[in-house]
Amino acid sequence: MSGPAVGSSTEPLNLTLRELQAIDAPVNVADGHARQPPTSSQQELIRSLPGFFAQAQAQPTFELEREAHRAFLSALGQHAAPVGSGRILTTYASSVAIDIVARGLARAGATVALIHPTFDNIPDLLRSHGVALVPLEQAQIGEPLPAELACGDCVFLTTPNNPTGWVAGVEELTSVACECRDRGLLLVLDTSFRGFDPRAQFDHYRLLDEVGVDYVLIEDTGKLWPMLELKLGFLAFSEGVQLPLREICSDVLLTASPVIMRLVSALAEDGRDGGFDALWGLITRNRDVLAARLAAGGLSCADKDSRVSVARVELPDPRAAEVVARLAREGVHALPCGPFFWNSPSDGERFIRIALARATDVVCHAADRIALAGAGSVG
Amino acid sequence: MSGPAVGSSTEPLNLTLRELQAIDAPVNVADGHARQPPTSSQQELIRSLPGFFAQAQAQPTFELEREAHRAFLSALGQHAAPVGSGRILTTYASSVAIDIVARGLARAGATVALIHPTFDNIPDLLRSHGVALVPLEQAQIGEPLPAELACGDCVFLTTPNNPTGWVAGVEELTSVACECRDRGLLLVLDTSFRGFDPRAQFDHYRLLDEVGVDYVLIEDTGKLWPMLELKLGFLAFSEGVQLPLREICSDVLLTASPVIMRLVSALAEDGRDGGFDALWGLITRNRDVLAARLAAGGLSCADKDSRVSVARVELPDPRAAEVVARLAREGVHALPCGPFFWNSPSDGERFIRIALARATDVVCHAADRIALAGAGSVG
Repeated sequence: MSGPAVGSSTEPLNLTLRELQAIDAPVNVADGHARQPPTSSQQELIRSLPGFFAQAQAQPTFELEREAHRAFLSALGQHAAPVGSGRILTTYASSVAIDIVARGLARAGATVALIHPTFDNIPDLLRSHGVALVPLEQAQIGEPLPAELACGDCVFLTTPNNPTGWVAGVEELTSVACECRDRGLLLVLDTSFRGFDPRAQFDHYRLLDEVGVDYVLIEDTGKLWPMLELKLGFLAFSEGVQLPLREICSDVLLTASPVIMRLVSALAEDGRDGGFDALWGLITRNRDVLAARLAAGGLSCADKDSRVSVARVELPDPRAAEVVARLAREGVHALPCGPFFWNSPSDGERFIRIALARATDVVCHAADRIALAGAGSVG
Repeated sequence: MSGPAVGSSTEPLNLTLRELQAIDAPVNVADGHARQPPTSSQQELIRSLPGFFAQAQAQPTFELEREAHRAFLSALGQHAAPVGSGRILTTYASSVAIDIVARGLARAGATVALIHPTFDNIPDLLRSHGVALVPLEQAQIGEPLPAELACGDCVFLTTPNNPTGWVAGVEELTSVACECRDRGLLLVLDTSFRGFDPRAQFDHYRLLDEVGVDYVLIEDTGKLWPMLELKLGFLAFSEGVQLPLREICSDVLLTASPVIMRLVSALAEDGRDGGFDALWGLITRNRDVLAARLAAGGLSCADKDSRVSVARVELPDPRAAEVVARLAREGVHALPCGPFFWNSPSDGERFIRIALARATDVVCHAADRIALAGAGSVG
């Protein structure tokens, strides 16, 4: 089953186009979407889809939307999120939410200090609107922000970060938030992976409100549950944000699907009632299996502390693109990490990203092949 | 049940923000989304959602996507559409597809001759990317195109048009396509409403391929079936199109939901097997009911020949905004047509747009209130 040809032959492929090539591959550990088998309680929710449809027909859309916001955000510890205030927009996906923010920043003429590395569609979307970027090294977050940022500019972090799993803790977030407040910078956080990591589930909204910084948070239901892209992105913002986010959003959509809102509420409740524990168990198991199998080839994972649903395999040489190409010929699709390092791609060439939100046997199979191919890259 | 406050108090609302205010209103004839009760066979498909989910888990995504393309496009007469060629992208919604084209046109520095009037998110999305617009009066389509267009520029038509129901027939489309070919212009068609009108279902792809013009077509499943925003947008393009549409698309999404792809295939098959006849029957009935009730207030519909799921009510005076505001206070939400006339809003002030993809009693109720309010606008 081969998909359509993607990308032009001369341009390097972005990460999403690489993921697209892997969609129907025998072993797809490329994209970070949730593709593990549904749990039995998630299967029950899938069986409930007709009932959710009926409820979505009967109930006001704004009520369903508010319930989805409340259920999802409170299940992830975000009790102070502005649910019911009109300051949470619902989109088809988190990338649509990122794009809305990018348009707003472009209109405001803001320069953005963007975390480095991170998934390449964030710098690509920002740049596509003409936003100027300054790299913000992950390791330096918590230290003073770049001097060139001026009032009205923006700091954009992904926490937990993709692919590293780095998390902005209370201390780092407070430090960044205070400096943003003092210098008149907007703080944007993409928290799409927070559901995997309890360390990213302290109440960000409360912290940011208490600091008094202007913020935009991008939340995502799409990474957690294997719902075949039945998902939502949320765009939450503080009262002081001046960007016309609602107007920009309205150019792209009227509402997301109320059926999916209802499904997200149910998934969040299931997550709170044991589903997240099961998910964390699976990801931990898959990370352990990956490490064990890699060890057979003398390889190991970077980011020992990461809890997100992707892992970086460290190669002995900076030849990720070559190793990934070799794996793809064997039907195993992973991502080279060069493009995550949007400001210095060569820094990513020592790493391959492996998705962990998969059945464990898929991860095993991929790990065995990578152990062989990666070891082969030495000689 | 009141929704969040939308829009700033100083800016006039765009049409989508107006529609958003009406989402949970007692009588919502504002948005053009399908909100009629599902037919019995559509109810059967809703009951099949868990089965569709299982099929989407088991079947390759590209296969499901290709089946959705084939089923949908062939049900609407588009047999020569490039199904299986890799030249049909699938998005969350047609507005996302429009936005992708708008980005491509902006990167190419193209000026766009855009049909006038049309739904305001099309000019808004194009302008938001910095694309320069030239109005193309609907009544003049088929006559020579504006002289200021140069090679590499674009002609963008909505056919059937929203809100007028105007359709580019074989003759007009051939004329425009030939001139575009001869002058090196890209032809973009938004055919989101074609499912309502058999006159828009001749094979556009065959015609355009035979002319040899470069084209992009935006197709939409969202206007036809009351699936609560479980929908897809398609972006189909000819071989010669140089815009990096696939790359731009990949910044926003990996894939749409394969569950929705499966649902769309089933809906298209149901449409072909009688569903479209039932839909056209409902829309005709609702249009007739609207006309009859309006007549009691001395009002009538414009666009006598329209078959799309919206109708324009003609007022005796150009006071649509005022009449719409009065109706909204009574819980009846419709759209003033000013914003559709993106180049000359005052030309729309004599018209109110009423959605017809509703239960007939909703249209009746709205029509009665409009007949009263509209008649009142005279004195």
